[in-house]
Amino acid sequence: MSLLAVGSMAFDAIETPFGKVNKIVGGSATYVAYTASNFIKPIQLVSVVGEDFPKETVADLESRGADFAGVERIAGKKSFFWSGKYHLDMNTRDTLVTDLNVLADFDPKLPEAYRETEYLMLGNLDPAVQLKVIEQMTRRPKFIVLDTMNFWMDIALPGLQEVLKKVDALMVNDSEARQLSGQYSLVKAAKAIMKMGPRFLIIKKGEHGALLFHEDKVFFAPALPLEEVFDPTGAGDTFAGGFIGHIAHTHDISFENMKTAIIVGSAMASFCVEKFGPEKLKMLTRYDIDMRIQDFVNLVNFDIQLV
Amino acid sequence: MSLLAVGSMAFDAIETPFGKVNKIVGGSATYVAYTASNFIKPIQLVSVVGEDFPKETVADLESRGADFAGVERIAGKKSFFWSGKYHLDMNTRDTLVTDLNVLADFDPKLPEAYRETEYLMLGNLDPAVQLKVIEQMTRRPKFIVLDTMNFWMDIALPGLQEVLKKVDALMVNDSEARQLSGQYSLVKAAKAIMKMGPRFLIIKKGEHGALLFHEDKVFFAPALPLEEVFDPTGAGDTFAGGFIGHIAHTHDISFENMKTAIIVGSAMASFCVEKFGPEKLKMLTRYDIDMRIQDFVNLVNFDIQLV
Repeated sequence: MSLLAVGSMAFDAIETPFGKVNKIVGGSATYVAYTASNFIKPIQLVSVVGEDFPKETVADLESRGADFAGVERIAGKKSFFWSGKYHLDMNTRDTLVTDLNVLADFDPKLPEAYRETEYLMLGNLDPAVQLKVIEQMTRRPKFIVLDTMNFWMDIALPGLQEVLKKVDALMVNDSEARQLSGQYSLVKAAKAIMKMGPRFLIIKKGEHGALLFHEDKVFFAPALPLEEVFDPTGAGDTFAGGFIGHIAHTHDISFENMKTAIIVGSAMASFCVEKFGPEKLKMLTRYDIDMRIQDFVNLVNFDIQLV
Repeated sequence: MSLLAVGSMAFDAIETPFGKVNKIVGGSATYVAYTASNFIKPIQLVSVVGEDFPKETVADLESRGADFAGVERIAGKKSFFWSGKYHLDMNTRDTLVTDLNVLADFDPKLPEAYRETEYLMLGNLDPAVQLKVIEQMTRRPKFIVLDTMNFWMDIALPGLQEVLKKVDALMVNDSEARQLSGQYSLVKAAKAIMKMGPRFLIIKKGEHGALLFHEDKVFFAPALPLEEVFDPTGAGDTFAGGFIGHIAHTHDISFENMKTAIIVGSAMASFCVEKFGPEKLKMLTRYDIDMRIQDFVNLVNFDIQLV
């Protein structure tokens, strides 16, 4: 089994009520790779970076099973840069800077060896770029997960709608689900979105957990109540990495297994927010992950013996 | 086993995006009685009503096992009246009218037969009134649950702090937990509040579920994702009624059983919001309740076989 992850590899500057970093490695593909590598190898990456992207990060990810054959490094140019500041509630943030740099002309080219990969994670990017990746697959992947955001709904809705028809699962947050569907109720929103293409819909609610919809079924995974959320940057991508990593590893796309995958994603995201950027993800052991998943079992497990 | 429930019995006028009622029976003790009576009888009520409170409601609740010996009916006066309007998100509302009426001079008097009751639910009222009830118990109840609100934190904090020392469990919403503790993180808020007296803390998050804290343990129950939330009025009291009703019925105050009680409370609250006021609660069968609790099992149950 292998996993193909497409997305940004970038630098972030982050300010939260707890601190500030001026330049830390980020990007959706980076978070997915750090996370999913706990569950599956290799992770075939498709991205674009500038000449400033750290060779140490590349080496670190390669040692974890990431394959950089599909990552283009462009000389004389800079990597994508994002800067944001979180509010006290950590659920909202202001974007201060978005320098697309090399991402502006990203034209993904899949190495031959990637084109029959069974699990495909399409990180948040222009839907046109996501579509190009799908079109280069010579065999339809067993499972395609799409991440997107309100920005693409605003400026590239037709393109997004086209990609939606070609994927198995969509991952969005609650306000994006409402925007895409025009429905306030998340149950109604889910029904509407599943008619647009994806058979599975995951609605991320940040500190309020995540919902998985499929046909007439729904599953809910809470977020772990934490004493301190230090930096939410990358939590959604980490969630995605844990989700797809578990599915690719188990090679099982049943609804039952997808529930476990949602818990794995939630557990990984709960680590991510404990330090700046992907720092915490770099230091995890398999034991840490197992213990954290057990925390989720304890958090929601109850005895149904009623009387 | 029996349950003593103290609280308001009142009229509400409610406007939601889905409709409007000018006068419907409400009040915390009313919701607790309608809900808990599915699990335990008798329910000893302590409240005060005006001469306008419907005899039909009294008869209906009596037929369900409510005992009105502790409910004072004051001739020539009106019952407590509250009017509110919900915003589209249903999580926020404006209070339009609060006419205390008979509640202004509420001086609870416990009938002799109530004074050794083992389970005590103190609905949201002036902490001084809640204290008077506790002081009239000739035997310390096995379990006391206190509901309160930000209003009392604003104007009667010392009284509230005094009552907090005498109860086992506190039930508040997330913003109230933050206000009472001065902590933004709910985990930190819970630790601070449990030092004020209650060994158990329940934080209600409306559509985002509920958290139960005890010592270093935490349990989370989601709210059921519903297609339509018609009217949230009374959902918190219904939750309380299901929670204390299950505990009184099972006569078990272990953390494990309290988890089940939280699920029962969540299930009952999910019914409450489906119609105006307590209308839906009046028509429930035991089968409806069992099926709804099964929905919660399906919603959160997952296979922990990881690999």
